[in-house]
Amino acid sequence: MAFDAIETPFGKTDKIIGGSATYVAYCASNFVQPVQQVSIVGYDFPKEVLQDLQSKGVQTEGVEIIKDKKSFFWAGKYHMDMNSRDTLVTDLNVLADFNPVIPESYQGAEFLMLGNLVPAIQKSVIQQLKTRPKLIVLDTMNFWMESALDDLKEVLTMVDVLLVNDAEARQLSGELSLVKAAKKIMAMGPKYIIIKKGEHGALLFHNDQIFFAPALPLEDVFDPTGAGDTFAGGFIGHLAKTKDISFENMKTAIIVGSAMASYCVEKFGTERLREITKEDIDKRLAQFRELVNFDIELV
Amino acid sequence: MAFDAIETPFGKTDKIIGGSATYVAYCASNFVQPVQQVSIVGYDFPKEVLQDLQSKGVQTEGVEIIKDKKSFFWAGKYHMDMNSRDTLVTDLNVLADFNPVIPESYQGAEFLMLGNLVPAIQKSVIQQLKTRPKLIVLDTMNFWMESALDDLKEVLTMVDVLLVNDAEARQLSGELSLVKAAKKIMAMGPKYIIIKKGEHGALLFHNDQIFFAPALPLEDVFDPTGAGDTFAGGFIGHLAKTKDISFENMKTAIIVGSAMASYCVEKFGTERLREITKEDIDKRLAQFRELVNFDIELV
Repeated sequence: MAFDAIETPFGKTDKIIGGSATYVAYCASNFVQPVQQVSIVGYDFPKEVLQDLQSKGVQTEGVEIIKDKKSFFWAGKYHMDMNSRDTLVTDLNVLADFNPVIPESYQGAEFLMLGNLVPAIQKSVIQQLKTRPKLIVLDTMNFWMESALDDLKEVLTMVDVLLVNDAEARQLSGELSLVKAAKKIMAMGPKYIIIKKGEHGALLFHNDQIFFAPALPLEDVFDPTGAGDTFAGGFIGHLAKTKDISFENMKTAIIVGSAMASYCVEKFGTERLREITKEDIDKRLAQFRELVNFDIELV
Repeated sequence: MAFDAIETPFGKTDKIIGGSATYVAYCASNFVQPVQQVSIVGYDFPKEVLQDLQSKGVQTEGVEIIKDKKSFFWAGKYHMDMNSRDTLVTDLNVLADFNPVIPESYQGAEFLMLGNLVPAIQKSVIQQLKTRPKLIVLDTMNFWMESALDDLKEVLTMVDVLLVNDAEARQLSGELSLVKAAKKIMAMGPKYIIIKKGEHGALLFHNDQIFFAPALPLEDVFDPTGAGDTFAGGFIGHLAKTKDISFENMKTAIIVGSAMASYCVEKFGTERLREITKEDIDKRLAQFRELVNFDIELV
């Protein structure tokens, strides 16, 4: 949970609320409650946001508040195509000494979503859970492949689903073909790989099965920040709601994640995500069905 | 109809059979017969290929054979990612004076596929048809947007479906967003726009409707040459077979085109396309259904 300052071709924000865990929680709470949040913030993080999350069924006992430090802050600027961005500022602040302690009340959680962070911290969270969750989903990024590859590889052996983008899948596997990349990564531990391709959708791999979910073609992508975290929140939110971790249900979960991400990018930061209703979600899920549904006729 | 010499990271060919019309005909003849071919070749084009096409229901009365000139020849080399290529040789040869005359026996054709070529020639073919076909599909490329834009714009007012890739759609419309690009291009004439995104699939636009078809995730793309033409052949082949030009049936036609293109890239040139059976096609269509099919549950 953090602050972001974002510049896109459509505008610019001052410090606004951001952070992977914030997006995941806002998104997942539409599908399952409680969401048990683990994070760290500084004295400057607004209490109203924590209260807003609580009102949506997000427990914040696991959110540590450091009285004499500031929250993590990131500033970035997106290029015209919205697919790439420059980081302008990264102030670690409280994140520099983050050593999460899982509250006793969180024990027994069946679904664990590990946001993108130092692999050693992700590992520590898994190890603190006395009962192994039914499903562990891991997000990571290229930075950890370069700076903490051994730790990352160890965590990979402990999780069920890995979320990466296409460039990261290629980097981690050394394979250009995403099909080959997914096979190599599955051999490293996770039985399911989700490869996110931004505006080109997402692929789910499991053994020899492949599922593809498109991104909704939008007239404007206003701000892509948090789209990947929102996708993750929708994915695990749907699985936790249905308690069904079959490949078939993961297909639906990926469509739910894609639908939620398509809302996220319509406004800056978490704004759109905080205002959408269940009716909005249903409407977009129906759009996805229209987008990919076809009648097959054999030759 | 032409010769190609192709180099990919997987190997290299001598002169082999190529050309948009060749791929379209080999592909479409799986779905509808006769296919009435219009093209031009030189004395060096093998009679066996014309006979092979005839055996598959392709009429070649409209294929002009120039006795003292060579066939069009293109040589190119694909880069490692297979998404970009360098042209090494372009010998126009017979194509320099191509001025197709539509045989009387072709009159009354209900479906017209105009392969990528000089817009003025595409226009001449449309004008020679005494009865306007039920559906005219136009392929084009960035080269004509730069060298013959006025002619291209005129042809756009005469056709129903435009096939372009994402970069070409952006160039023609001046819009970065493909949704906005499609709207602008529809205002230029064609009521349907298909935007091909290579390994990222294809989008079909019509009024406010959008359909998305993925490309099949493949371990190896051996040779992408002709994939777009094969896609076009499968698209119009399915429509001509079913004689149904509704948006719903175009969805299926795009899946058929994608399935055929996924076979095309498995071997050099037309090789794979010439050997596949109806069973192969059905098998791949079923894979496409698995790839995108999901059960929707509303929130």
